[in-house]
Amino acid sequence: MTLRPLGDKVIVEVIDEPQTTASGIVLPDTAKEKSQKGKVIAVGPGKLLDNGQRAALEVNEGDTVMFAKYGGTEVTLDGKELMILSERDIHAIIA
Amino acid sequence: MTLRPLGDKVIVEVIDEPQTTASGIVLPDTAKEKSQKGKVIAVGPGKLLDNGQRAALEVNEGDTVMFAKYGGTEVTLDGKELMILSERDIHAIIA
Amino acid sequence: MTLRPLGDKVIVEVIDEPQTTASGIVLPDTAKEKSQKGKVIAVGPGKLLDNGQRAALEVNEGDTVMFAKYGGTEVTLDGKELMILSERDIHAIIA
Amino acid sequence: MTLRPLGDKVIVEVIDEPQTTASGIVLPDTAKEKSQKGKVIAVGPGKLLDNGQRAALEVNEGDTVMFAKYGGTEVTLDGKELMILSERDIHAIIA
Amino acid sequence: MTLRPLGDKVIVEVIDEPQTTASGIVLPDTAKEKSQKGKVIAVGPGKLLDNGQRAALEVNEGDTVMFAKYGGTEVTLDGKELMILSERDIHAIIA
Amino acid sequence: MTLRPLGDKVIVEVIDEPQTTASGIVLPDTAKEKSQKGKVIAVGPGKLLDNGQRAALEVNEGDTVMFAKYGGTEVTLDGKELMILSERDIHAIIA
Amino acid sequence: MTLRPLGDKVIVEVIDEPQTTASGIVLPDTAKEKSQKGKVIAVGPGKLLDNGQRAALEVNEGDTVMFAKYGGTEVTLDGKELMILSERDIHAIIA
Repeated sequence: MTLRPLGDKVIVEVIDEPQTTASGIVLPDTAKEKSQKGKVIAVGPGKLLDNGQRAALEVNEGDTVMFAKYGGTEVTLDGKELMILSERDIHAIIA
Repeated sequence: MTLRPLGDKVIVEVIDEPQTTASGIVLPDTAKEKSQKGKVIAVGPGKLLDNGQRAALEVNEGDTVMFAKYGGTEVTLDGKELMILSERDIHAIIA
Repeated sequence: MTLRPLGDKVIVEVIDEPQTTASGIVLPDTAKEKSQKGKVIAVGPGKLLDNGQRAALEVNEGDTVMFAKYGGTEVTLDGKELMILSERDIHAIIA
Repeated sequence: MTLRPLGDKVIVEVIDEPQTTASGIVLPDTAKEKSQKGKVIAVGPGKLLDNGQRAALEVNEGDTVMFAKYGGTEVTLDGKELMILSERDIHAIIA
Repeated sequence: MTLRPLGDKVIVEVIDEPQTTASGIVLPDTAKEKSQKGKVIAVGPGKLLDNGQRAALEVNEGDTVMFAKYGGTEVTLDGKELMILSERDIHAIIA
Repeated sequence: MTLRPLGDKVIVEVIDEPQTTASGIVLPDTAKEKSQKGKVIAVGPGKLLDNGQRAALEVNEGDTVMFAKYGGTEVTLDGKELMILSERDIHAIIA
Repeated sequence: MTLRPLGDKVIVEVIDEPQTTASGIVLPDTAKEKSQKGKVIAVGPGKLLDNGQRAALEVNEGDTVMFAKYGGTEVTLDGKELMILSERDIHAIIA
């Protein structure tokens, strides 16, 4: 089963990383902050402009990205934790 | 009786799936989360652009889609649970 | 007395239908949900576009339509229960 | 003293009508709903479009109109109860 | 000291009028409603349009105007009570 | 150290004036209202228009201006109390 | 690991400065106000205009900037405190 996003939507698989406190203690899942890092697994055809054309997205499948904390929708698909985001909720590509 | 949506509206028949907890227990209806999956049964002619033309929709009749939790309006027609959504509330096509 | 709507306004005569519970009991008026179905009795000349032209409406006099629960204004005219709606609050034409 | 409205503003003299309950009792002023009916006494030159032109209004002096309950500003001038409304708060012309 | 407003700003000197109740009693200052009437003492060059031009204002220095209750900013200059308003907060010219 | 504002931003050095009550008493700092008067010390290149050009600002370095009470951001630089404002928060030039 | 911002996003490394009270006391970290000063470490390709082109940013890598208190998102990367900001949340370049 695959997802084909619409418009400027981007589907990201969340990357969960171990988090440590300043003093080096690894935090358990319940105390961790939500991850804002993920791998792009599908991108839409781009946002529709007023002139009827589409603006191609800046991110591509396979990019590792940093996204906004409170943007997007969480979905679980085949046991994977996914985020569906508008491109404007993606801050940067991690290279 | 059929529904012909206006503008960028899309009519979706909700697909209710059995939900199981992480440990495999099938949840009863009252504990289930609202489904965000459905089958497109009718699409509008597209959103009116500023230049007076319409932008054809990206989804088509028959597509299975994933839609936003809090977008759209629920209606019941001939015993079927339908959602009327704007296309921007549809996240992705499930292929 | 007739009403001639402005812009993209549409006047709809609400269709009140008997409502039954899942087990077949007809609900009294006080327990009924507000009807979202109506017959179009008048349409405006269309929304004014930025270039000064008007975009003709998609609905016509005589159409039966399904409209948004919380859009529009209720008025009573000559004993009839009417809704004045913007076209964007009309979801679909029932054919 | 006359009022010359600006832009898409319309000045309406409110028409107060006797209101009766379903059983025919005429309501005193304190129990009446606010009237939404009025006679247009002056109209502005029209809304300024982005290209610098003005879009002439659809209502004219002398029209009887039905307007939105919560739009507009009430003013009292020479003992008359007036409403100053934007044209978009006028629903329909009563003909 | 003079004020030269920017953009579509208009500077109005508030006209305080004696207010009487329905039965003819002149209200003291503390019971009066805020005046919505004033004389235009300066106007800006007009709102900047998207194409880079300015749309000249409809009001001129010397006009007596009626303005919105809750728009604008009050300032006191040389002992005079002034309002700085955007033109859209001016309802009508009193002629 | 100098500040070079971006876009339609304007940097203003606040002018604190002694304030007196109606009866002539000079108010101490703690009872004073926030000053809305200042001297422009730097202006940005202008707001970016949709066509990619910039609209030059109406205010210039050295102008004394009156600005909105609740717009802008206060910063302290080299012991001076500065406001960083968008041009739309500047009401008028005091000449 | 480097970050490549999208659109009009700018990544800034926050500059923490010792803060002193009016009487010269250096404030401890817990009493300090959040810094609004930083060094630009990466800029996006610019905001997408309606005509499909991008407007190059006004700030460049290496600039020292003053940014809005409540705009942007804080992230910590390789132990550095970073802010991801839209260019409109950057007030001025400090030169």
